[in-house]
Amino acid sequence: MSESSPPAAPPTLRWVGDALTGSLELLDQTRLPGEVVTLSCRTDEDVFGAIRRLSVRGAPAIGVSAAFGLLLGVRQALAPTPGPMKGDRAAFDAALAASAEKLAASRPTAVNLFWALARCRRALSAEPDLSPGDALVRLLEEAQAIEAEDRAMCAAIGRHGADLLPEPAGDGELGLLTHCNAGGLATAGDGTALAVLFEAHRRATDAGRRVRVYADETRPLLQGARLTAWELTRRGVPTTVLCDSAAASLLATGRVHAVVTGADRVAANGDAANKIGTFPLAVLAHRFHVPFYIAAPTSTFDRELASGKEIPIEQRDAAEVLNYGGLRTAADGAEAYNPAFDVTPADLIAALVTERGVIPSPTAEAVAAHLADA
Amino acid sequence: MSESSPPAAPPTLRWVGDALTGSLELLDQTRLPGEVVTLSCRTDEDVFGAIRRLSVRGAPAIGVSAAFGLLLGVRQALAPTPGPMKGDRAAFDAALAASAEKLAASRPTAVNLFWALARCRRALSAEPDLSPGDALVRLLEEAQAIEAEDRAMCAAIGRHGADLLPEPAGDGELGLLTHCNAGGLATAGDGTALAVLFEAHRRATDAGRRVRVYADETRPLLQGARLTAWELTRRGVPTTVLCDSAAASLLATGRVHAVVTGADRVAANGDAANKIGTFPLAVLAHRFHVPFYIAAPTSTFDRELASGKEIPIEQRDAAEVLNYGGLRTAADGAEAYNPAFDVTPADLIAALVTERGVIPSPTAEAVAAHLADA
Repeated sequence: MSESSPPAAPPTLRWVGDALTGSLELLDQTRLPGEVVTLSCRTDEDVFGAIRRLSVRGAPAIGVSAAFGLLLGVRQALAPTPGPMKGDRAAFDAALAASAEKLAASRPTAVNLFWALARCRRALSAEPDLSPGDALVRLLEEAQAIEAEDRAMCAAIGRHGADLLPEPAGDGELGLLTHCNAGGLATAGDGTALAVLFEAHRRATDAGRRVRVYADETRPLLQGARLTAWELTRRGVPTTVLCDSAAASLLATGRVHAVVTGADRVAANGDAANKIGTFPLAVLAHRFHVPFYIAAPTSTFDRELASGKEIPIEQRDAAEVLNYGGLRTAADGAEAYNPAFDVTPADLIAALVTERGVIPSPTAEAVAAHLADA
Repeated sequence: MSESSPPAAPPTLRWVGDALTGSLELLDQTRLPGEVVTLSCRTDEDVFGAIRRLSVRGAPAIGVSAAFGLLLGVRQALAPTPGPMKGDRAAFDAALAASAEKLAASRPTAVNLFWALARCRRALSAEPDLSPGDALVRLLEEAQAIEAEDRAMCAAIGRHGADLLPEPAGDGELGLLTHCNAGGLATAGDGTALAVLFEAHRRATDAGRRVRVYADETRPLLQGARLTAWELTRRGVPTTVLCDSAAASLLATGRVHAVVTGADRVAANGDAANKIGTFPLAVLAHRFHVPFYIAAPTSTFDRELASGKEIPIEQRDAAEVLNYGGLRTAADGAEAYNPAFDVTPADLIAALVTERGVIPSPTAEAVAAHLADA
């Protein structure tokens, strides 16, 4: 274990070992910031549960985890105890299909999940002559390639996004507002929206300027207060947490120069689904003439959906709203409305930022051009 | 104690006993809905603390409580132990001034507080010949008059507000959205915004129609989930609690036909300060063409303030945002932005509703006309 200061936390996700005996280690994000606990996943059920419970969350990290989960699902089916793979390639392919179907049901909105599963299956379809043992190794290579590309994607998004940010007048502080956690905890790398904020902070520090990140706490699960503030403060970025409902007042003060969030799915016309509370933030940013940016990898785009109206929105358990820390907070007898995501229409988005660059004032044509050859 | 079903809770506030020996009983709203606890206040310090801690809250209830607190402050100064009042009338008036100054510092935004204190002082100024003992009795009469008028005010607001609400097409359910708690717990009566919702529910039930109230949970102190849902469900009103950030999605569904909130202070031009999160709700209601109403007694209007820009906004303790139930939820090192109120500009308010009637599309002229002779 590393013992640097501040104490290094385990990475968001990490494969340990080889294809036949290894496991996926996930940092349990439901325990942060109070406890740093690692989950060791050895079956696709373990990964499914971790995604479902939000132990691992964020569209890119869900995609990478699902790829490793697919390997674990096939291995569980064909080599439930340590030893060589059983069955033939047809059995392997059947197990692959079954595990992909299972994992795809873990979260309905994050398209990276389906993208990563489809990519792994395509990689295996392209090599039908591999033995089950070699196919498993190939599956590990593909999952690790997705993970490595995710890291590179984060770095590129950080650079492209930081290029967009204004410089405040005089020696003013650059104020940046974000919602939920689109950070290193949501990816294998430095994050999407948070990669932009980290890069902005690095550049400002180099130039002797100040940056402050305002983090919406993000009810009901407080990913902003728990996770985003944890990532930012660990890396020395001045951080102010606020209730989601206070963002309007904060924007009215003029202290925020840009809003940057991630996305869980982007439709062909640029409409973007993200954590509940993102859409009202975009409406308010528009009212106060503050640019609203969404940072998301091209794997988050779903060209099959013409607009945001077609994005399925996950409804989550009422207990997330009615309880807190295991205790009932709402009056008995009350029901709950608890959509996990909302959809921000493209006309409220100043620019979409991907690892390929920037789509200013996104339209269906601009999105199609940006994704060409992807 | 009453033992009806559901078990009757103590009223929000209640004076028990005579002027010389009585006390102010307050329902401790910080313990609801889990525990029903009554605080017995015997000094103005007790009342100050209860207001400051939000054991009693809501602009009208704060005003009524402060009036009784003034009596307790004078009594504590001139009759600290049971027995006749000490000192002369000059001593009484000095104690009255000192206690009013103390109580006025409890919350900076709710104008009813200053209004109630000034009204009690005026009542006593008008009768300079009363002995200290008689003046104390007069003070109790004035506080009880404020309380009685508060109950009548709630009933009138309920009727005027319910007159504004639409009837949904066909056999559709009337959906009403509110924020924070402007209910019986915020007044001596049935509430302001909630009086409108109770009256709408009563009328709909009589007509065989359905009503559902959507209650924003209202971070950071969850007055919506804890208090509004408690009041509504106890009286059989179908209630759905949502995170404040989910109101945008809910409005987008078309299920909400009107938004009704209270106010803590209304400026001369109709701009209204209310619980943090009210202003973004008004912006979103406007976007979705849903009428946004504010229900508040005329005692909430502050004609000294030309616009909402002049309303002082209380900044509350960072711990309200960074902690929950005594446990730290946000990462260490994070700061907090925690304004208690925001200001909704008059142009987003479809109508202000008072005990006198309705001010549609409020302007400075319309507000002045409405308040004439008040």
